[in-house]
Amino acid sequence: MKKKKVKIVGVIGGSSCGREVYEASRHLGALLAKEGYMVVCGGLGGVMRGVCEGAYKAGGITIGILPGKFSGEANPFIKIPIVTAMAHARNAVIVRTADVLVAVDGKYGTLSEIGMALSIGKKVISLKTSWNIPGIIKVQTAEEVVGEIEG
Amino acid sequence: MKKKKVKIVGVIGGSSCGREVYEASRHLGALLAKEGYMVVCGGLGGVMRGVCEGAYKAGGITIGILPGKFSGEANPFIKIPIVTAMAHARNAVIVRTADVLVAVDGKYGTLSEIGMALSIGKKVISLKTSWNIPGIIKVQTAEEVVGEIEG
Amino acid sequence: MKKKKVKIVGVIGGSSCGREVYEASRHLGALLAKEGYMVVCGGLGGVMRGVCEGAYKAGGITIGILPGKFSGEANPFIKIPIVTAMAHARNAVIVRTADVLVAVDGKYGTLSEIGMALSIGKKVISLKTSWNIPGIIKVQTAEEVVGEIEG
Amino acid sequence: MKKKKVKIVGVIGGSSCGREVYEASRHLGALLAKEGYMVVCGGLGGVMRGVCEGAYKAGGITIGILPGKFSGEANPFIKIPIVTAMAHARNAVIVRTADVLVAVDGKYGTLSEIGMALSIGKKVISLKTSWNIPGIIKVQTAEEVVGEIEG
Repeated sequence: MKKKKVKIVGVIGGSSCGREVYEASRHLGALLAKEGYMVVCGGLGGVMRGVCEGAYKAGGITIGILPGKFSGEANPFIKIPIVTAMAHARNAVIVRTADVLVAVDGKYGTLSEIGMALSIGKKVISLKTSWNIPGIIKVQTAEEVVGEIEG
Repeated sequence: MKKKKVKIVGVIGGSSCGREVYEASRHLGALLAKEGYMVVCGGLGGVMRGVCEGAYKAGGITIGILPGKFSGEANPFIKIPIVTAMAHARNAVIVRTADVLVAVDGKYGTLSEIGMALSIGKKVISLKTSWNIPGIIKVQTAEEVVGEIEG
Repeated sequence: MKKKKVKIVGVIGGSSCGREVYEASRHLGALLAKEGYMVVCGGLGGVMRGVCEGAYKAGGITIGILPGKFSGEANPFIKIPIVTAMAHARNAVIVRTADVLVAVDGKYGTLSEIGMALSIGKKVISLKTSWNIPGIIKVQTAEEVVGEIEG
Repeated sequence: MKKKKVKIVGVIGGSSCGREVYEASRHLGALLAKEGYMVVCGGLGGVMRGVCEGAYKAGGITIGILPGKFSGEANPFIKIPIVTAMAHARNAVIVRTADVLVAVDGKYGTLSEIGMALSIGKKVISLKTSWNIPGIIKVQTAEEVVGEIEG
């Protein structure tokens, strides 16, 4: 396996989501872990939980940058709970910590993270995201996400 | 003048901008100050400077939530420099502090603030913004902005 | 009046306090406002409320860097409520925003702010503080505080 | 081995230190890792580097909550670099993320973290710290630190 430049992949997306998006997130998490990437996310439910479940069960390292005051709010697949107690300001920590961002589904919160990532020059790959923002790399499968990460 | 619910208006927009957008920002700042609103923004150049120049010269209170470590980075029309030393995470403080947000022009950073504002249920009024995000109230003049603030 | 180098004085201290400390804080706030200084503090009760009451009633500008998500938690003498939603991390904003810090009474939270202020090279004046930390300027009266600010 | 309540131990201390303190930090890190604790710290030099070197070489997980904008500032023994770009405000994240804090040596910055930890009710164990703050548990050896963690 050739040397990778990317070590930590940030996954952003809705804190609640339907079955299909959850499964896509889980599959993405599993692929990322198998490729040797650590996953950083907001640590809560929905897409965040899906990607962590996939990564965790594939033996990966999952980092949750939590908005509240206690690690107990982390989803059960977070190995490294980071407790910020700074609500939405923690999004900046997710974006800075990630070498590359992947957006999956998501609403205004995800849009905010996409905007911040692009504003500081981070690559943003979108998997099934409804936001159509110039500068995003849009793909349809988790396999394509992985193909774009080191691209 | 009837009692106002809004006290602090947040203005977000590009840290550099052309002459026309600067003048529009300045005019907006003057109107906001005359209506008795305080203005909060990121405290730097471009739209932020324009709106502060307008508000300051009309006798208003201008608050700059600065990203760096020193108040010296504030534009000359900031009366209240708040020094955060937390880079883009300071955007969350602007959004939380503002009762209503007005977006003027702007790029990805502004998009990020729009997303955060909408995600926590704050009204966002757009004056000449290129971002076409559902949920934003779009207007063409500073007078219309003022009309929407208490609406 | 000669040109002042200090514009914003930070006042740190306990969020609850006895009558005597409250009165001392109120007197300090009034003196600071009369000298033309803006006051920044954590915006809540106790010493913070005392200093703001004094400054506000003397016509001064009072800035509250609030830990929670809503401006409603500010004490009634805050003119400029800054809403951070970042709990104790907001202490860093108080310390950075103040040109000089004054500690009045206070417990561990105040100790934390004293430590941060000294670590980034800000002057800390202590009025009746129980913490005996090397590097603090210890005084007994509000008048002495004012004497030390530009010293 | 009985079930542990503590999962993450925060280590705070000076960003530069002498040989003896470095060795004590390294020994502490090794012991913490062997006990199965993750280590969280500020991710830079001195005590932070020492404890990470010890933990890393003993197979432990080391988390660095970095103050700057890039993961490159982390010491070479950080496995999980968290990039905050929020200068001293990141201390609040260290304190919140740790279940228990251990202070080793250190100056005003360490004092600030001790104050914050005690103010939110976290246990603080002091190993060779010069700060004599009521509420701290003072010990002389890394072995005693480990004895106090679950105590």
